[in-house]
Amino acid sequence: MALETVERQIEHFWEELNDEDIKALYAKLPVGKRLRAKLLLKIADASDEAVRTAAIIEMIHAASLLHDDVIDEAHSRRGVASINATYGNKHAIMLGDILYSKAYSELTRGNLQIAEIVSSAVTQLSIGELKDVDMAKRFNEDEKLYLDMIYKKTAVLIEASAKAGAILAGKEPESYGRYGRNLGVAFQIVDDILDITQDSATLGKPALNDFVEGKATLPYIYLYRSLDASGKEQLLAMHGKKLDAQQQEWIKTQMQRYGCVEQSFALAKELIEEAVALMGAQKEEYLVSIAREMIERNY
Amino acid sequence: MALETVERQIEHFWEELNDEDIKALYAKLPVGKRLRAKLLLKIADASDEAVRTAAIIEMIHAASLLHDDVIDEAHSRRGVASINATYGNKHAIMLGDILYSKAYSELTRGNLQIAEIVSSAVTQLSIGELKDVDMAKRFNEDEKLYLDMIYKKTAVLIEASAKAGAILAGKEPESYGRYGRNLGVAFQIVDDILDITQDSATLGKPALNDFVEGKATLPYIYLYRSLDASGKEQLLAMHGKKLDAQQQEWIKTQMQRYGCVEQSFALAKELIEEAVALMGAQKEEYLVSIAREMIERNY
Repeated sequence: MALETVERQIEHFWEELNDEDIKALYAKLPVGKRLRAKLLLKIADASDEAVRTAAIIEMIHAASLLHDDVIDEAHSRRGVASINATYGNKHAIMLGDILYSKAYSELTRGNLQIAEIVSSAVTQLSIGELKDVDMAKRFNEDEKLYLDMIYKKTAVLIEASAKAGAILAGKEPESYGRYGRNLGVAFQIVDDILDITQDSATLGKPALNDFVEGKATLPYIYLYRSLDASGKEQLLAMHGKKLDAQQQEWIKTQMQRYGCVEQSFALAKELIEEAVALMGAQKEEYLVSIAREMIERNY
Repeated sequence: MALETVERQIEHFWEELNDEDIKALYAKLPVGKRLRAKLLLKIADASDEAVRTAAIIEMIHAASLLHDDVIDEAHSRRGVASINATYGNKHAIMLGDILYSKAYSELTRGNLQIAEIVSSAVTQLSIGELKDVDMAKRFNEDEKLYLDMIYKKTAVLIEASAKAGAILAGKEPESYGRYGRNLGVAFQIVDDILDITQDSATLGKPALNDFVEGKATLPYIYLYRSLDASGKEQLLAMHGKKLDAQQQEWIKTQMQRYGCVEQSFALAKELIEEAVALMGAQKEEYLVSIAREMIERNY
């Protein structure tokens, strides 16, 4: 119900843009899971201000996905052709800018602490996207660098949503923010794992696609660390290239041998346990269950 | 002197991003004329708040140019290779997003009326950019639509700068905003005229480039209006295509015949006269002279 109100609020923001062409583009945007809005509303209850803030954050998330799809040259988003694929990069870039700027003008009409948190989150998010692209140019073996990048790319807006909810509800922004951060990072780690463990039919993209695109996610970093000199060399030689069946097999076998997927999953689990403990202490049963579900995704 | 302070403030904002890669990209951005900052500081005097606001608006302007260059597939900006040409579209898009979001978080720390004006201006600016692209797909003969598009694309941030200056100085935002708006629209009209009247060596791009790119600027709209049915057909057949010397000659001759450039220039002049009158009434001699200079550019 509350999420329905958020959808209406987003529609209302679009209508205020007062432009038929833009409205037509809106209709082409896939509606996501609205995780950020859900989280905020669970923390803050569905006051008018909470609904407005949730709608603003979802607009920002949509804007970031539009630019993200241009950057990743993605052809689809949630099974639907992406805006950049259908209308070209120009439309995707500008529609993103329109959404961002509309969201920011709405933010200045609400709680300013939230406005500051959300706009700073977008700065970090954009820096994260840029690092994601840059780090894919060579094999990155630095775990800390990788975790910082996915925190920025994936977790920072979830963290901001949780903090905003807490501020609106008069709860502790730091605990809730930490919860959101851990949730986001764990989500990305599990996503990275799925790219390795699931078959390409389930994923809807080629298996080991991250590595083919140059992205050395956590299991690859752990694998590199475990391999001997000649194994390291072999792995680096495959980085960022199309892989044949034999190469795929080699990577998977080596990962199994050294337990790289398990090690990655253990880190995600650790983050989730911390999140669960934080929210347990606040008696937020629902938030505890959201965190638990995250780690129980099929992998 | 005040402009120097603005440069330092922009540098300071960049340093706060606390990222070496981003700082390195900043050094590659060409420094423009800083027209918007100049205008704001002339209206408001160089208080700390005015300098901050001017720096924020220049960051926003830089962000919009980054995205604009991606959209226009521009290879250079002010004689220097553009970021998209050197580092690729991805860097240009994300650097733009970083600049925008940093500017917005800074805006929320200042005058909120200004934050609202500036962020709404960015929405309009992005809508204007999108319309510019869309309108180039077919020959647009609607003068009103064209003027609305260039108002958004070019004038809206100049208008916002003038308004912001007026608010900070306790002057009348409406008069100053109107001045900025007219200045911006007139600037774009003169720019469009130069694409027709100057040779390609002076312009640094092929002559009649706008029309080749599908952009039917004011002189083309007036020409279309003046031509008979067969002339109209001839003009439409050339729209959005590479032109040979004979076709270029035909367009220029027809424009001369119907005084299309003069008619366009007359409109720019009218806008400038209104701007001059508005600022004359406020005894803003310097702003009057800025407006006059605009219309005295070589054409």
